Amino acid sequence: MRIDILTIFPGMFATLTESIVKRALDAGKVQIVTTDLREFAQNKHRSVDDAPYGGGPGMVMQPEPFFLAVEHLRQIDATRGRVILMSPRGTPFSQQKALELAREERLFFLCGHYEGIDERVKDALVDEEISLGDFILTGGEIPAMAITDAVVRLLPGVLPEASIADESFTDSLLEYPQYTRPAEFRGKAVPDILLSGNHEKIRRWRREQSLVRTLTTRPDLLRSAELNESERRMLTAVAARLSLDVLL
Amino acid sequence: MRIDILTIFPGMFATLTESIVKRALDAGKVQIVTTDLREFAQNKHRSVDDAPYGGGPGMVMQPEPFFLAVEHLRQIDATRGRVILMSPRGTPFSQQKALELAREERLFFLCGHYEGIDERVKDALVDEEISLGDFILTGGEIPAMAITDAVVRLLPGVLPEASIADESFTDSLLEYPQYTRPAEFRGKAVPDILLSGNHEKIRRWRREQSLVRTLTTRPDLLRSAELNESERRMLTAVAARLSLDVLL
Repeated sequence: MRIDILTIFPGMFATLTESIVKRALDAGKVQIVTTDLREFAQNKHRSVDDAPYGGGPGMVMQPEPFFLAVEHLRQIDATRGRVILMSPRGTPFSQQKALELAREERLFFLCGHYEGIDERVKDALVDEEISLGDFILTGGEIPAMAITDAVVRLLPGVLPEASIADESFTDSLLEYPQYTRPAEFRGKAVPDILLSGNHEKIRRWRREQSLVRTLTTRPDLLRSAELNESERRMLTAVAARLSLDVLL
Repeated sequence: MRIDILTIFPGMFATLTESIVKRALDAGKVQIVTTDLREFAQNKHRSVDDAPYGGGPGMVMQPEPFFLAVEHLRQIDATRGRVILMSPRGTPFSQQKALELAREERLFFLCGHYEGIDERVKDALVDEEISLGDFILTGGEIPAMAITDAVVRLLPGVLPEASIADESFTDSLLEYPQYTRPAEFRGKAVPDILLSGNHEKIRRWRREQSLVRTLTTRPDLLRSAELNESERRMLTAVAARLSLDVLL
Protein backbone atom coordinates (compact mmCIF):
# COMPACT_ATOMS: atom_id res chain seq x y z
CA MET A 1 0.00 0.00 0.00
CA ARG A 2 1.08 3.54 -0.71
CA ILE A 3 -0.12 6.38 1.56
CA ASP A 4 0.30 9.98 0.41
CA ILE A 5 -0.14 12.64 3.08
CA LEU A 6 -0.65 16.26 1.96
CA THR A 7 -0.01 18.72 4.74
CA ILE A 8 1.52 22.06 5.69
CA PHE A 9 3.22 20.29 8.63
CA PRO A 10 5.19 17.45 7.02
CA GLY A 11 7.50 17.36 10.07
CA MET A 12 4.64 16.02 12.23
CA PHE A 13 4.72 12.67 10.44
CA ALA A 14 8.28 11.82 11.44
CA THR A 15 6.71 10.14 14.48
CA LEU A 16 4.82 7.62 12.39
CA THR A 17 8.08 5.80 11.90
CA GLU A 18 7.92 4.49 15.47
CA SER A 19 5.95 1.52 16.71
CA ILE A 20 4.02 -0.91 14.49
CA VAL A 21 4.03 1.42 11.51
CA LYS A 22 7.85 1.28 11.57
CA ARG A 23 7.72 -2.50 11.42
CA ALA A 24 5.40 -2.31 8.38
CA LEU A 25 7.63 0.26 6.67
CA ASP A 26 10.74 -1.86 7.29
CA ALA A 27 9.00 -4.95 5.92
CA GLY A 28 7.96 -3.04 2.79
CA LYS A 29 4.24 -3.52 3.51
CA VAL A 30 3.55 0.18 3.19
CA GLN A 31 5.19 3.27 1.73
CA ILE A 32 4.30 6.61 3.35
CA VAL A 33 5.03 9.76 1.34
CA THR A 34 4.54 13.15 2.96
CA THR A 35 4.15 16.17 0.66
CA ASP A 36 4.38 19.79 1.78
CA LEU A 37 1.46 21.71 0.30
CA ARG A 38 3.52 24.89 0.39
CA GLU A 39 5.62 23.50 -2.46
CA PHE A 40 2.50 23.97 -4.58
CA ALA A 41 1.67 27.48 -3.40
CA GLN A 42 1.03 29.96 -6.20
CA ASN A 43 2.82 32.93 -4.64
CA LYS A 44 6.30 33.83 -3.53
CA HIS A 45 5.31 33.86 0.18
CA ARG A 46 4.32 30.18 -0.20
CA SER A 47 1.05 30.90 1.59
CA VAL A 48 -1.72 28.40 0.93
CA ASP A 49 -4.64 30.13 2.68
CA ASP A 50 -6.67 33.30 2.30
CA ALA A 51 -9.66 35.08 3.89
CA PRO A 52 -13.11 33.47 3.41
CA TYR A 53 -15.49 34.96 0.80
CA GLY A 54 -18.49 36.35 2.62
CA GLY A 55 -16.44 37.25 5.71
CA GLY A 56 -15.97 35.56 9.05
CA PRO A 57 -13.07 34.67 11.35
CA GLY A 58 -9.98 32.76 10.32
CA MET A 59 -8.48 31.67 7.03
CA VAL A 60 -9.53 29.11 4.43
CA MET A 61 -7.11 26.84 2.57
CA GLN A 62 -7.02 27.52 -1.16
CA PRO A 63 -7.95 24.86 -3.71
CA GLU A 64 -5.01 25.06 -6.08
CA PRO A 65 -2.21 23.54 -3.94
CA PHE A 66 -4.33 20.45 -3.22
CA PHE A 67 -5.15 19.88 -6.90
CA LEU A 68 -1.57 20.47 -8.06
CA ALA A 69 -0.09 18.22 -5.38
CA VAL A 70 -2.44 15.29 -6.11
CA GLU A 71 -1.85 15.65 -9.87
CA HIS A 72 1.92 15.75 -9.33
CA LEU A 73 1.81 12.65 -7.11
CA ARG A 74 -0.29 10.79 -9.70
CA GLN A 75 2.37 11.52 -12.29
CA ILE A 76 5.00 9.92 -10.05
CA ASP A 77 2.76 6.89 -9.38
CA ALA A 78 -0.25 6.45 -11.67
CA THR A 79 -2.39 4.43 -9.21
CA ARG A 80 -5.47 6.61 -8.83
CA GLY A 81 -6.02 5.83 -5.15
CA ARG A 82 -8.78 7.01 -2.82
CA VAL A 83 -8.64 10.66 -1.79
CA ILE A 84 -9.70 11.22 1.81
CA LEU A 85 -10.27 14.61 3.37
CA MET A 86 -9.85 14.68 7.14
CA SER A 87 -12.74 16.87 8.24
CA PRO A 88 -15.02 17.31 11.28
CA ARG A 89 -17.87 17.22 8.74
CA GLY A 90 -17.03 13.71 7.50
CA THR A 91 -18.36 10.26 8.32
CA PRO A 92 -17.11 9.16 11.75
CA PHE A 93 -14.15 6.77 11.50
CA SER A 94 -14.73 3.19 12.69
CA GLN A 95 -12.98 -0.17 12.72
CA GLN A 96 -15.25 -1.16 9.83
CA LYS A 97 -13.86 1.75 7.81
CA ALA A 98 -10.28 0.79 8.76
CA LEU A 99 -10.87 -2.74 7.41
CA GLU A 100 -12.32 -1.25 4.20
CA LEU A 101 -9.39 1.17 3.68
CA ALA A 102 -6.86 -1.63 4.35
CA ARG A 103 -8.02 -3.21 1.07
CA GLU A 104 -7.04 -0.15 -1.03
CA GLU A 105 -3.84 0.03 -3.06
CA ARG A 106 -3.29 3.72 -2.40
CA LEU A 107 -4.71 6.34 -0.05
CA PHE A 108 -4.34 10.11 -0.16
CA PHE A 109 -4.93 12.01 3.09
CA LEU A 110 -5.60 15.73 2.69
CA CYS A 111 -4.97 17.51 5.97
CA GLY A 112 -7.00 20.68 6.41
CA HIS A 113 -6.22 23.51 8.78
CA TYR A 114 -7.48 26.91 9.86
CA GLU A 115 -11.23 27.40 9.54
CA GLY A 116 -11.49 24.94 6.69
CA ILE A 117 -10.74 24.07 3.10
CA ASP A 118 -12.19 25.66 -0.03
CA GLU A 119 -15.34 23.69 -0.87
CA ARG A 120 -14.19 23.06 -4.45
CA VAL A 121 -11.54 20.67 -3.13
CA LYS A 122 -14.34 18.55 -1.73
CA ASP A 123 -16.49 18.87 -4.87
CA ALA A 124 -13.90 17.83 -7.43
CA LEU A 125 -10.92 16.14 -5.79
CA VAL A 126 -12.07 14.28 -2.67
CA ASP A 127 -13.65 10.81 -2.74
CA GLU A 128 -14.62 10.77 0.91
CA GLU A 129 -14.65 12.96 4.02
CA ILE A 130 -13.76 11.20 7.27
CA SER A 131 -13.99 12.59 10.79
CA LEU A 132 -12.14 11.09 13.74
CA GLY A 133 -15.06 11.93 16.04
CA ASP A 134 -17.21 14.74 17.39
CA PHE A 135 -14.41 16.98 18.58
CA ILE A 136 -12.36 19.77 17.04
CA LEU A 137 -8.65 19.51 16.36
CA THR A 138 -6.23 22.12 15.02
CA GLY A 139 -5.85 20.26 11.76
CA GLY A 140 -6.16 16.97 9.92
CA GLU A 141 -2.63 15.80 10.76
CA ILE A 142 -3.38 13.85 13.95
CA PRO A 143 -6.49 12.23 12.37
CA ALA A 144 -4.38 11.21 9.33
CA MET A 145 -1.86 9.62 11.72
CA ALA A 146 -4.62 7.79 13.55
CA ILE A 147 -6.14 6.36 10.38
CA THR A 148 -2.71 5.45 9.02
CA ASP A 149 -1.96 3.57 12.24
CA ALA A 150 -5.36 1.83 12.30
CA VAL A 151 -5.07 0.78 8.65
CA VAL A 152 -1.39 -0.21 8.52
CA ARG A 153 -1.67 -2.59 11.48
CA LEU A 154 -4.39 -4.47 9.56
CA LEU A 155 -2.25 -5.07 6.46
CA PRO A 156 -1.47 -8.78 6.00
CA GLY A 157 1.70 -9.82 7.80
CA VAL A 158 2.08 -6.73 9.98
CA LEU A 159 0.59 -8.17 13.19
CA PRO A 160 0.05 -11.81 14.23
CA GLU A 161 -3.40 -12.97 13.05
CA ALA A 162 -4.43 -14.00 16.58
CA SER A 163 -3.99 -10.47 17.93
CA ILE A 164 -6.38 -9.01 15.39
CA ALA A 165 -9.05 -11.69 15.71
CA ASP A 166 -9.18 -11.26 19.49
CA GLU A 167 -9.59 -7.52 19.86
CA SER A 168 -12.27 -4.98 20.80
CA PHE A 169 -14.89 -4.03 18.18
CA THR A 170 -14.04 -6.96 15.88
CA ASP A 171 -16.76 -8.86 17.71
CA SER A 172 -18.56 -5.73 18.99
CA LEU A 173 -17.48 -6.28 22.59
CA LEU A 174 -15.00 -4.43 24.78
CA GLU A 175 -11.94 -6.36 25.92
CA TYR A 176 -11.78 -8.36 29.13
CA PRO A 177 -9.33 -7.26 31.87
CA GLN A 178 -5.73 -8.37 31.50
CA TYR A 179 -3.14 -9.10 34.17
CA THR A 180 0.56 -9.82 34.08
CA ARG A 181 3.40 -10.15 36.59
CA PRO A 182 3.67 -9.58 39.52
CA ALA A 183 0.89 -11.89 40.75
CA GLU A 184 0.44 -9.55 43.69
CA PHE A 185 1.10 -5.83 43.42
CA ARG A 186 0.56 -3.44 46.33
CA GLY A 187 -1.92 -5.77 47.98
CA LYS A 188 -3.88 -6.43 44.79
CA ALA A 189 -3.77 -10.00 43.53
CA VAL A 190 -4.47 -11.34 40.04
CA PRO A 191 -7.90 -13.13 40.00
CA ASP A 192 -7.41 -16.78 41.04
CA ILE A 193 -9.13 -18.13 37.95
CA LEU A 194 -6.35 -16.79 35.70
CA LEU A 195 -3.81 -18.83 37.65
CA SER A 196 -6.00 -21.97 37.61
CA GLY A 197 -4.74 -23.37 34.31
CA ASN A 198 -8.34 -24.33 33.43
CA HIS A 199 -8.57 -22.93 29.91
CA GLU A 200 -12.29 -23.44 29.46
CA LYS A 201 -13.08 -21.66 32.75
CA ILE A 202 -10.70 -18.84 31.83
CA ARG A 203 -12.37 -18.47 28.42
CA ARG A 204 -15.82 -18.28 30.03
CA TRP A 205 -14.66 -15.80 32.68
CA ARG A 206 -13.13 -13.53 30.02
CA ARG A 207 -16.23 -13.67 27.85
CA GLU A 208 -18.42 -12.77 30.85
CA GLN A 209 -16.10 -9.89 31.81
CA SER A 210 -16.26 -8.57 28.22
CA LEU A 211 -20.03 -8.80 28.20
CA VAL A 212 -20.55 -7.07 31.55
CA ARG A 213 -18.04 -4.34 30.73
CA THR A 214 -19.74 -3.68 27.41
CA LEU A 215 -23.12 -3.62 29.14
CA THR A 216 -22.03 -1.08 31.75
CA THR A 217 -19.85 1.19 29.58
CA ARG A 218 -21.06 0.86 25.99
CA PRO A 219 -24.46 -0.86 25.90
CA ASP A 220 -24.91 0.50 22.34
CA LEU A 221 -22.31 -2.04 21.14
CA LEU A 222 -24.39 -4.99 22.38
CA ARG A 223 -26.94 -4.40 19.64
CA SER A 224 -24.53 -5.82 17.05
CA ALA A 225 -22.99 -8.50 19.30
CA GLU A 226 -23.72 -12.19 18.82
CA LEU A 227 -25.10 -13.43 22.13
CA ASN A 228 -26.36 -16.90 22.97
CA GLU A 229 -29.42 -17.51 25.14
CA SER A 230 -27.54 -17.94 28.43
CA GLU A 231 -25.45 -14.83 27.81
CA ARG A 232 -28.60 -12.88 27.15
CA ARG A 233 -30.13 -14.13 30.42
CA MET A 234 -26.94 -13.32 32.36
CA LEU A 235 -26.83 -9.77 30.96
CA THR A 236 -30.51 -9.19 31.62
CA ALA A 237 -29.95 -10.23 35.25
CA VAL A 238 -26.92 -7.95 35.61
CA ALA A 239 -28.78 -5.04 33.99
CA ALA A 240 -31.68 -5.54 36.42
CA ARG A 241 -29.32 -5.67 39.41
CA LEU A 242 -27.63 -2.43 38.34
CA SER A 243 -30.99 -0.85 37.39
CA LEU A 244 -29.74 -0.33 33.83
CA ASP A 245 -32.34 0.24 31.19
CA VAL A 246 -30.96 -1.85 28.34
CA LEU A 247 -32.85 -3.75 25.68
CA LEU A 248 -31.19 -7.12 24.96
CA MET B 1 -2.01 23.73 32.54
CA ARG B 2 0.53 20.93 32.89
CA ILE B 3 0.19 17.80 30.77
CA ASP B 4 2.23 14.70 31.69
CA ILE B 5 2.43 12.00 29.05
CA LEU B 6 3.63 8.52 30.10
CA THR B 7 4.71 6.42 27.15
CA ILE B 8 7.26 3.96 25.83
CA PHE B 9 7.55 6.15 22.70
CA PRO B 10 8.47 9.60 24.04
CA GLY B 11 9.95 10.50 20.63
CA MET B 12 6.47 10.50 19.06
CA PHE B 13 5.52 13.65 20.95
CA ALA B 14 8.17 15.84 19.37
CA THR B 15 5.55 16.64 16.72
CA LEU B 16 3.20 18.24 19.22
CA THR B 17 5.49 21.25 19.19
CA GLU B 18 4.18 22.24 15.74
CA SER B 19 1.00 24.13 15.00
CA ILE B 20 -1.32 25.65 17.61
CA VAL B 21 0.16 23.63 20.44
CA LYS B 22 3.51 25.28 19.71
CA ARG B 23 1.90 28.69 20.04
CA ALA B 24 0.42 27.71 23.42
CA LEU B 25 3.77 26.32 24.61
CA ASP B 26 5.61 29.48 23.53
CA ALA B 27 3.04 31.65 25.30
CA GLY B 28 3.43 29.60 28.50
CA LYS B 29 -0.25 28.52 28.46
CA VAL B 30 0.71 24.86 28.76
CA GLN B 31 3.67 22.77 29.77
CA ILE B 32 3.94 19.30 28.23
CA VAL B 33 6.23 16.78 29.94
CA THR B 34 6.87 13.43 28.31
CA THR B 35 8.14 10.58 30.51
CA ASP B 36 9.61 7.33 29.24
CA LEU B 37 8.02 4.44 31.14
CA ARG B 38 11.15 2.35 30.56
CA GLU B 39 12.96 4.58 33.05
CA PHE B 40 10.73 2.98 35.68
CA ALA B 41 11.20 -0.60 34.52
CA GLN B 42 12.12 -3.03 37.29
CA ASN B 43 14.65 -5.10 35.36
CA LYS B 44 17.93 -4.58 33.58
CA HIS B 45 16.40 -5.10 30.12
CA ARG B 46 14.11 -2.12 30.80
CA SER B 47 11.14 -4.17 29.61
CA VAL B 48 7.75 -2.97 30.84
CA ASP B 49 5.52 -5.79 29.57
CA ASP B 50 5.02 -9.49 30.19
CA ALA B 51 2.78 -12.39 29.09
CA PRO B 52 -0.87 -12.28 30.23
CA TYR B 53 -1.95 -14.50 33.14
CA GLY B 54 -4.42 -17.05 31.82
CA GLY B 55 -2.76 -17.17 28.39
CA GLY B 56 -3.63 -15.54 25.09
CA PRO B 57 -1.77 -13.66 22.36
CA GLY B 58 0.43 -10.61 22.90
CA MET B 59 1.91 -8.90 25.90
CA VAL B 60 0.40 -6.88 28.74
CA MET B 61 1.99 -3.77 30.23
CA GLN B 62 3.02 -4.23 33.86
CA PRO B 63 1.55 -2.08 36.64
CA GLU B 64 4.71 -0.98 38.43
CA PRO B 65 6.22 1.46 35.89
CA PHE B 66 2.94 3.40 35.68
CA PHE B 67 2.63 3.73 39.47
CA LEU B 68 6.29 4.67 39.96
CA ALA B 69 6.23 7.24 37.14
CA VAL B 70 3.07 8.99 38.40
CA GLU B 71 4.41 9.03 41.95
CA HIS B 72 7.74 10.45 40.77
CA LEU B 73 6.00 13.17 38.72
CA ARG B 74 3.82 14.11 41.70
CA GLN B 75 6.97 14.60 43.76
CA ILE B 76 8.28 17.05 41.16
CA ASP B 77 4.94 18.89 41.01
CA ALA B 78 2.47 18.16 43.80
CA THR B 79 -0.71 19.06 41.86
CA ARG B 80 -2.66 15.81 41.93
CA GLY B 81 -4.14 16.17 38.42
CA ARG B 82 -6.55 13.89 36.59
CA VAL B 83 -5.13 10.57 35.41
CA ILE B 84 -6.50 9.50 32.04
CA LEU B 85 -5.93 6.11 30.48
CA MET B 86 -6.19 6.08 26.69
CA SER B 87 -8.11 2.87 26.04
CA PRO B 88 -10.53 1.44 23.44
CA ARG B 89 -12.67 0.48 26.44
CA GLY B 90 -13.11 4.07 27.66
CA THR B 91 -15.84 6.66 27.22
CA PRO B 92 -15.76 8.04 23.66
CA PHE B 93 -14.01 11.42 23.46
CA SER B 94 -16.19 14.42 22.53
CA GLN B 95 -15.99 18.21 22.32
CA GLN B 96 -17.90 18.31 25.61
CA LYS B 97 -15.13 16.27 27.23
CA ALA B 98 -12.47 18.55 25.69
CA LEU B 99 -14.17 21.59 27.27
CA GLU B 100 -14.31 19.76 30.60
CA LEU B 101 -10.60 18.74 30.52
CA ALA B 102 -9.58 22.30 29.52
CA ARG B 103 -10.67 23.41 33.01
CA GLU B 104 -8.19 21.07 34.78
CA GLU B 105 -4.88 22.27 36.21
CA ARG B 106 -3.03 19.09 35.33
CA LEU B 107 -3.65 16.04 33.17
CA PHE B 108 -1.78 12.74 33.05
CA PHE B 109 -2.13 10.64 29.90
CA LEU B 110 -1.16 6.99 30.28
CA CYS B 111 -0.45 5.48 26.86
CA GLY B 112 -1.08 1.76 26.67
CA HIS B 113 0.35 -0.62 24.10
CA TYR B 114 0.40 -4.28 23.14
CA GLU B 115 -2.73 -6.19 24.11
CA GLY B 116 -3.44 -3.93 27.04
CA ILE B 117 -2.48 -2.72 30.47
CA ASP B 118 -2.58 -4.63 33.74
CA GLU B 119 -6.06 -4.06 35.20
CA ARG B 120 -4.64 -2.91 38.54
CA VAL B 121 -3.45 0.30 36.86
CA LYS B 122 -7.06 1.08 36.08
CA ASP B 123 -8.31 0.03 39.53
CA ALA B 124 -5.95 2.11 41.63
CA LEU B 125 -4.26 4.81 39.54
CA VAL B 126 -6.61 5.92 36.75
CA ASP B 127 -9.41 8.45 37.24
CA GLU B 128 -10.95 7.98 33.82
CA GLU B 129 -10.64 5.85 30.68
CA ILE B 130 -11.14 7.69 27.40
CA SER B 131 -11.40 6.20 23.92
CA LEU B 132 -10.87 8.19 20.74
CA GLY B 133 -13.56 6.18 18.97
CA ASP B 134 -14.60 2.68 17.91
CA PHE B 135 -11.39 1.71 16.16
CA ILE B 136 -8.14 0.05 17.20
CA LEU B 137 -4.81 1.80 17.22
CA THR B 138 -1.35 0.44 18.02
CA GLY B 139 -1.18 2.43 21.23
CA GLY B 140 -2.45 5.36 23.21
CA GLU B 141 0.10 7.82 21.81
CA ILE B 142 -1.94 9.19 18.89
CA PRO B 143 -5.10 9.48 21.06
CA ALA B 144 -3.08 11.37 23.70
CA MET B 145 -1.87 13.75 20.96
CA ALA B 146 -5.43 14.24 19.71
CA ILE B 147 -6.80 15.05 23.16
CA THR B 148 -3.85 17.32 23.93
CA ASP B 149 -4.48 19.23 20.69
CA ALA B 150 -8.25 19.45 21.30
CA VAL B 151 -7.77 20.66 24.89
CA VAL B 152 -4.85 23.05 24.40
CA ARG B 153 -6.58 25.00 21.62
CA LEU B 154 -9.44 25.70 24.07
CA LEU B 155 -7.21 27.22 26.77
CA PRO B 156 -7.93 30.93 27.22
CA GLY B 157 -5.83 33.11 24.93
CA VAL B 158 -4.62 30.35 22.59
CA LEU B 159 -7.12 30.94 19.76
CA PRO B 160 -9.23 34.02 18.96
CA GLU B 161 -12.61 33.75 20.77
CA ALA B 162 -14.58 34.12 17.51
CA SER B 163 -12.97 31.02 15.99
CA ILE B 164 -14.08 28.82 18.85
CA ALA B 165 -17.63 30.17 19.12
CA ASP B 166 -18.23 29.58 15.39
CA GLU B 167 -17.16 25.98 14.97
CA SER B 168 -18.71 22.56 14.43
CA PHE B 169 -20.22 20.75 17.46
CA THR B 170 -20.23 23.86 19.66
CA ASP B 171 -23.77 24.44 18.41
CA SER B 172 -24.33 20.80 17.35
CA LEU B 173 -24.24 21.61 13.62
CA LEU B 174 -21.66 20.82 10.97
CA GLU B 175 -19.88 23.78 9.41
CA TYR B 176 -21.12 25.56 6.27
CA PRO B 177 -18.98 25.43 3.11
CA GLN B 178 -16.11 27.91 2.87
CA TYR B 179 -14.55 29.50 -0.20
CA THR B 180 -11.49 31.65 -0.73
CA ARG B 181 -9.52 33.00 -3.69
CA PRO B 182 -9.57 32.49 -6.63
CA ALA B 183 -13.23 33.44 -7.27
CA GLU B 184 -13.21 31.01 -10.18
CA PHE B 185 -11.07 27.87 -10.16
CA ARG B 186 -11.12 25.34 -13.02
CA GLY B 187 -14.58 26.43 -14.12
CA LYS B 188 -16.03 26.36 -10.60
CA ALA B 189 -17.15 29.73 -9.26
CA VAL B 190 -17.70 30.79 -5.65
CA PRO B 191 -21.47 31.05 -4.94
CA ASP B 192 -22.71 34.57 -5.92
CA ILE B 193 -24.23 35.22 -2.54
CA LEU B 194 -20.80 35.18 -0.84
CA LEU B 195 -19.69 38.00 -3.15
CA SER B 196 -22.91 40.00 -2.61
CA GLY B 197 -21.76 41.93 0.44
CA ASN B 198 -25.21 41.38 1.99
CA HIS B 199 -24.22 40.14 5.45
CA GLU B 200 -27.69 39.13 6.58
CA LYS B 201 -28.28 37.06 3.43
CA ILE B 202 -24.84 35.46 3.82
CA ARG B 203 -25.58 34.60 7.44
CA ARG B 204 -28.90 32.98 6.47
CA TRP B 205 -27.33 31.06 3.57
CA ARG B 206 -24.57 29.71 5.81
CA ARG B 207 -27.01 28.69 8.51
CA GLU B 208 -29.15 26.85 5.91
CA GLN B 209 -26.08 25.11 4.46
CA SER B 210 -25.06 23.99 7.95
CA LEU B 211 -28.53 22.67 8.65
CA VAL B 212 -28.91 20.77 5.38
CA ARG B 213 -25.40 19.30 5.64
CA THR B 214 -26.07 18.14 9.19
CA LEU B 215 -29.40 16.66 8.07
CA THR B 216 -27.85 14.67 5.22
CA THR B 217 -24.58 13.56 6.90
CA ARG B 218 -25.18 13.52 10.66
CA PRO B 219 -28.91 13.72 11.40
CA ASP B 220 -28.14 12.44 14.94
CA LEU B 221 -26.60 15.85 15.74
CA LEU B 222 -29.88 17.66 15.00
CA ARG B 223 -31.44 16.20 18.14
CA SER B 224 -29.38 18.56 20.31
CA ALA B 225 -29.48 21.55 17.92
CA GLU B 226 -31.53 24.65 18.67
CA LEU B 227 -33.85 25.12 15.70
CA ASN B 228 -36.50 27.76 15.25
CA GLU B 229 -39.91 27.01 13.68
CA SER B 230 -39.00 28.04 10.12
CA GLU B 231 -35.76 26.04 10.24
CA ARG B 232 -37.68 23.01 11.39
CA ARG B 233 -40.14 23.43 8.49
CA MET B 234 -37.31 23.89 5.99
CA LEU B 235 -35.51 20.74 7.20
CA THR B 236 -38.72 18.72 7.21
CA ALA B 237 -39.28 19.74 3.56
CA VAL B 238 -35.70 18.86 2.59
CA ALA B 239 -35.92 15.53 4.40
CA ALA B 240 -39.16 14.72 2.55
CA ARG B 241 -37.64 15.67 -0.81
CA LEU B 242 -34.61 13.43 -0.18
CA SER B 243 -36.83 10.69 1.30
CA LEU B 244 -34.85 10.84 4.55
CA ASP B 245 -36.47 9.36 7.59
CA VAL B 246 -35.57 11.95 10.23
CA LEU B 247 -37.53 13.00 13.26
CA LEU B 248 -37.27 16.80 13.84
